[in-house]
Amino acid sequence: MIYQFSERVKSLKPSAIREILKNSSAPGVIPLSAGNPAPDAFPYEEIRRLSAELLERAPVEALQYSVTEGYAPLREHLRSYMKEKHGIGTESDEILITSGAQQVMDLLTKTLLNEGDTVLCEAPSFIGSLNTFRSYRARLCGIPMEEDGLSLEKLEEALKREKNVKYLYTIPNFQNPSGITMSLEKRRRVYELCRDHGVMILEDNPYGDLRFVGEDLPPIKAFDTEGVVLYAGSFSKVVSPGMRVGYALGPREVIQKMVVCKQGEDVHSNIWAQIICHRFMTECDYEAHLCRLREIYRRKSEVLRAAMEQHFQPLISWNEFQGGLFAWCTLPEQIDMLEFVKRAAEEKVCVVPGTAFLTDESEPCRSFRVNFSTPTDEQLAEGIEVLGRLAREMAG
Amino acid sequence: MIYQFSERVKSLKPSAIREILKNSSAPGVIPLSAGNPAPDAFPYEEIRRLSAELLERAPVEALQYSVTEGYAPLREHLRSYMKEKHGIGTESDEILITSGAQQVMDLLTKTLLNEGDTVLCEAPSFIGSLNTFRSYRARLCGIPMEEDGLSLEKLEEALKREKNVKYLYTIPNFQNPSGITMSLEKRRRVYELCRDHGVMILEDNPYGDLRFVGEDLPPIKAFDTEGVVLYAGSFSKVVSPGMRVGYALGPREVIQKMVVCKQGEDVHSNIWAQIICHRFMTECDYEAHLCRLREIYRRKSEVLRAAMEQHFQPLISWNEFQGGLFAWCTLPEQIDMLEFVKRAAEEKVCVVPGTAFLTDESEPCRSFRVNFSTPTDEQLAEGIEVLGRLAREMAG
Repeated sequence: MIYQFSERVKSLKPSAIREILKNSSAPGVIPLSAGNPAPDAFPYEEIRRLSAELLERAPVEALQYSVTEGYAPLREHLRSYMKEKHGIGTESDEILITSGAQQVMDLLTKTLLNEGDTVLCEAPSFIGSLNTFRSYRARLCGIPMEEDGLSLEKLEEALKREKNVKYLYTIPNFQNPSGITMSLEKRRRVYELCRDHGVMILEDNPYGDLRFVGEDLPPIKAFDTEGVVLYAGSFSKVVSPGMRVGYALGPREVIQKMVVCKQGEDVHSNIWAQIICHRFMTECDYEAHLCRLREIYRRKSEVLRAAMEQHFQPLISWNEFQGGLFAWCTLPEQIDMLEFVKRAAEEKVCVVPGTAFLTDESEPCRSFRVNFSTPTDEQLAEGIEVLGRLAREMAG
Repeated sequence: MIYQFSERVKSLKPSAIREILKNSSAPGVIPLSAGNPAPDAFPYEEIRRLSAELLERAPVEALQYSVTEGYAPLREHLRSYMKEKHGIGTESDEILITSGAQQVMDLLTKTLLNEGDTVLCEAPSFIGSLNTFRSYRARLCGIPMEEDGLSLEKLEEALKREKNVKYLYTIPNFQNPSGITMSLEKRRRVYELCRDHGVMILEDNPYGDLRFVGEDLPPIKAFDTEGVVLYAGSFSKVVSPGMRVGYALGPREVIQKMVVCKQGEDVHSNIWAQIICHRFMTECDYEAHLCRLREIYRRKSEVLRAAMEQHFQPLISWNEFQGGLFAWCTLPEQIDMLEFVKRAAEEKVCVVPGTAFLTDESEPCRSFRVNFSTPTDEQLAEGIEVLGRLAREMAG
């Protein structure tokens, strides 16, 4: 049998991160490439207790079909929680529970994009989302990053120049992969620019709760009085990624179309996980849990920082980061980045080449991404030492 | 803000079943419209025990990110189980775990279809799948059903006539909604016809284990020596639909593309549920559980049959069915089916109008679908009595 694949999949490549993740679980490999939460960040005791109670007291609810929109008590709680904590969500907004935040990217794209339409995104940006957009044959247009977020000048140029722009994709907090946080003033201006051009904003905030330095900034969605922003939230980094529970908070008119698309994709998300997330938020001390997470990641980030200061300087530089799970590191001109990443993998230290995060992987890039949440402290120290030594060897 | 939706969603309507399901959970409504497993069909005790053990002994595995292909032990077990039990799966086949079987329909369509390509399907067929195909702007071409499965003559005509046919979608066992089971001889001929025309077969088998009369027939996939058939299986009707665990068994070349598409949709399926399904199949007496299910549904089907014999004859006729969850009932010519369904809903008895299952909802149809797994015995008897009375009233 000869298979005739669709045009959209002919051009797709497996995610470089997923491919690397497969090998990075081999024995002896130091995994600085993944984005897994630290294993000690999961609220084991609470999930164990909540799950036992749920399967004892309301087993039918936990095992039967449910509605596509998501578990109603979770949707209601999120609505009030996000309003109180972040000041987001208006009367014309609605919440949809998804199978991880990745599905928000998928459903919004399915809802808005015709083949060939344009998505503006930060350059670099999260490869998983870029691949989702590509799977709908989006034309990706990268907006270069600056120290305080994407370039407003380049954004404005792109909004004026590009045809059929459907949305801007942005991760304002501790961006993946750059670690950059968008300034308050830029958030406001990004909102105004997109609004004025009739272009939606897809605001992806998986790491917002993982700030360990400085003050929280309001989401772009907090400025949204006119239904411009669709906000994507996730329980993956704060409760459990294996549960696959995320959510979209955005204009009801858009959410309703996304619900129809979700019906056709997976009917609804795993209901046990949705109920556990709801009960964890409402019956446990959720804010204390977030504090504990921030402390875990602050400590791990300091292990990384100390190792980088010892082994990277002066050859390899890195962006300052105030939260999240990643450091973005840049090699000097005399070192070929792809060769460096390949040789590191041969020495069993896995990092992700920066090119994986570009809209055009063939563009030049001297950076790579280091994750500090997955490895143990010892792996982190050893991995950075290996990378530092390798850089010195390759610099000659 | 004015939203510009994609062409694909502009034409989509919410699933009639889902919409009816929402109202059918209102107090006092008799739900003959859903497709929920009977609440006493869930293996509560086993899931409770397996979940407690899992969260105690391997909590990281149950809560951390996992691979897109699915939980490896479940994939391996399914491969040998399906080979032994149904004789399906060759060296060039592969298994992908999905978020319910609905995602198999979605991923295969995404992998094969360009907009405007044709999908052949049984007429009538499962509305959820038809809507998934529609969401990729498939051209649906219905093949009429006969008592022993789809019309071979019409299938052959369509294969010769239609352009860009990517696959035939069929539910060979206790088809939803007609209840019809495809004969062995037709299974063989359907395979040969599609193979000879280079058209894949998407074989959807959610109800195969729920046969309560007669002998099991081999899946179409059992004839597949050349990678023509992609088989969709599901734990929704035999373990729990709320868990959202299904799987595809098909040609590796196709599955690999589906994996890439799944990465972009939801990264992977809820891992707790995948592990529970694996342990339930391997650590509990799975075959005894299936026997118990068949007994539950055989008994409930007899409650329905007795009520139909008492209240439907001679006005309303129904297809014989040997398994599954549905009866397909047909009104006499003098009764308007849509009016009948509407008036039944006013009397708080919900059934699904047959038109919902057609490729073209505006075609004439005198049938409606009755589900016997969701209602209690009392609701079933009362619901059928109301429908019978209504038919007599409307027949005048």
